[in-house]
Amino acid sequence: MPKKEFENDERTVERLKHLGQKIKKQLEDPEEGDLTIETKVRSKSNVEYDREKGRLSLGDSYSTRKFLNISHARKFMQTLMVASKTKELVERGRTASIREIYYQLKHSVPGLDENTFDDQDESNNVVVDIETATGAIREDLHLFAEPKGRLFGPIKINDSGDIIDGMNMGTSGMAINSIVDHFEFVECNADKILVVETSAMVNRLVEEDFHKEQDAVIIGTGGQPARGARRLINMMHNELDLPVYVFTDGDPWGYYIYSVLKSGSMSLAFQSDRLATPEARLIGMTM
Amino acid sequence: MPKKEFENDERTVERLKHLGQKIKKQLEDPEEGDLTIETKVRSKSNVEYDREKGRLSLGDSYSTRKFLNISHARKFMQTLMVASKTKELVERGRTASIREIYYQLKHSVPGLDENTFDDQDESNNVVVDIETATGAIREDLHLFAEPKGRLFGPIKINDSGDIIDGMNMGTSGMAINSIVDHFEFVECNADKILVVETSAMVNRLVEEDFHKEQDAVIIGTGGQPARGARRLINMMHNELDLPVYVFTDGDPWGYYIYSVLKSGSMSLAFQSDRLATPEARLIGMTM
Repeated sequence: MPKKEFENDERTVERLKHLGQKIKKQLEDPEEGDLTIETKVRSKSNVEYDREKGRLSLGDSYSTRKFLNISHARKFMQTLMVASKTKELVERGRTASIREIYYQLKHSVPGLDENTFDDQDESNNVVVDIETATGAIREDLHLFAEPKGRLFGPIKINDSGDIIDGMNMGTSGMAINSIVDHFEFVECNADKILVVETSAMVNRLVEEDFHKEQDAVIIGTGGQPARGARRLINMMHNELDLPVYVFTDGDPWGYYIYSVLKSGSMSLAFQSDRLATPEARLIGMTM
Repeated sequence: MPKKEFENDERTVERLKHLGQKIKKQLEDPEEGDLTIETKVRSKSNVEYDREKGRLSLGDSYSTRKFLNISHARKFMQTLMVASKTKELVERGRTASIREIYYQLKHSVPGLDENTFDDQDESNNVVVDIETATGAIREDLHLFAEPKGRLFGPIKINDSGDIIDGMNMGTSGMAINSIVDHFEFVECNADKILVVETSAMVNRLVEEDFHKEQDAVIIGTGGQPARGARRLINMMHNELDLPVYVFTDGDPWGYYIYSVLKSGSMSLAFQSDRLATPEARLIGMTM
């Protein structure tokens, strides 16, 4: 299989190096009293809803993380550890899951009764910090998450040289990987995308041949859509001009899933242009 | 798509009816002091390792659940609710996910400050209770779980009339559904099955064309293999005579994953003949 093209590799390494060099400069400067990392604020205060574009976006507030501030020191250490690990990955042309990053970096700090990370949420958060701090997205950092979601329907996808026919996937479906940016849509006979929250409903629709009879690409998200599924829906909508209908349970959680797919999420607001599909429409489900 | 064949439907309904009739008889009998459901004990005391077959199996101890015993009443109610719901599913020829069962049956009991179920673990457990109480397996009850796992490699699978070519799945893979019993293996050029714990390692192996160059079916389980993946591995091993190698992380959790795949799990010991593959071999991973 041809290697995935990481065309940004050089730029990504430059960005990570820049982060490290700033720290190094501070360390070497006798006048400098403090070690500081700057990341974009990702809390509510810095997330804006762009009415025109119909999606969330991140404002320009930065927060500083200082090594000598006792409440920042732990996060500071974590940030440098993850940044160093991802630089190694990019330079060596390897990929890793965010779960691997957690396990590879988790250890007790020698001489202290303290772990580098207590759970994976901590390291996942730091990964997003580094994305916003450097401008390199997770895919650039050679990081991916567990695959989640399935695809069925009249579309042929070139994935690394293999042509996958979504019309010929039985009840199984094509697994949607965490990284889908390299997909090419070589043939499409669909006239819509139906995004379905529950696996039960996907199974039922596929059993009824909905994707075949209604010329629909069915994307099962298995709950809140993962980054890969959101990116794939965004790509299919933009490149193939397919309308997107979101079919969720008729409850607040279903509406929340719809809003994330449509406008993006707070925590990934800096990625909304890649992940959100503002033209998506809700198909309510009554109970 | 042709409907999945549920050849056991009639028998399953009979089994569920039998459960209900026993309760009804007790209700109508003025001599009967108590409402009782019998289920097989699924705790350690009733699980045996069958040395000859190399897998766990369930013994013959039964436990009784009495409605008038205050510590049983809740479980008793839950058991009847789930049994009734699955009977409805089977009779109406519909399927549901175990998550749907939980949501459909969850409500506050009128007049009490008490929910029928507090979390999905409770209803999942009751589903297994009903499996052991009636002898009808989950697939017979028209219940399935979230799809989990991926397949790559030189094998063609007939899934409900579609022929899926595992050799042509790019970096995505075929999603492994919860129910795979209807699969037919129409062509196989593999000479082994490699079961891989982490998605990261699956991605790496697929990037390196391991499945193509080594004629291997790669099954990515994404951690502990789900019931569908375990059943599929069992089927491919038995029907195609393929040796199974389990490639996990070199830690106790990896060894546990191997043991479940090889010998079955405590909680599904009554299903070991379908789910376990005693001939599986471990490929250790050093760190």
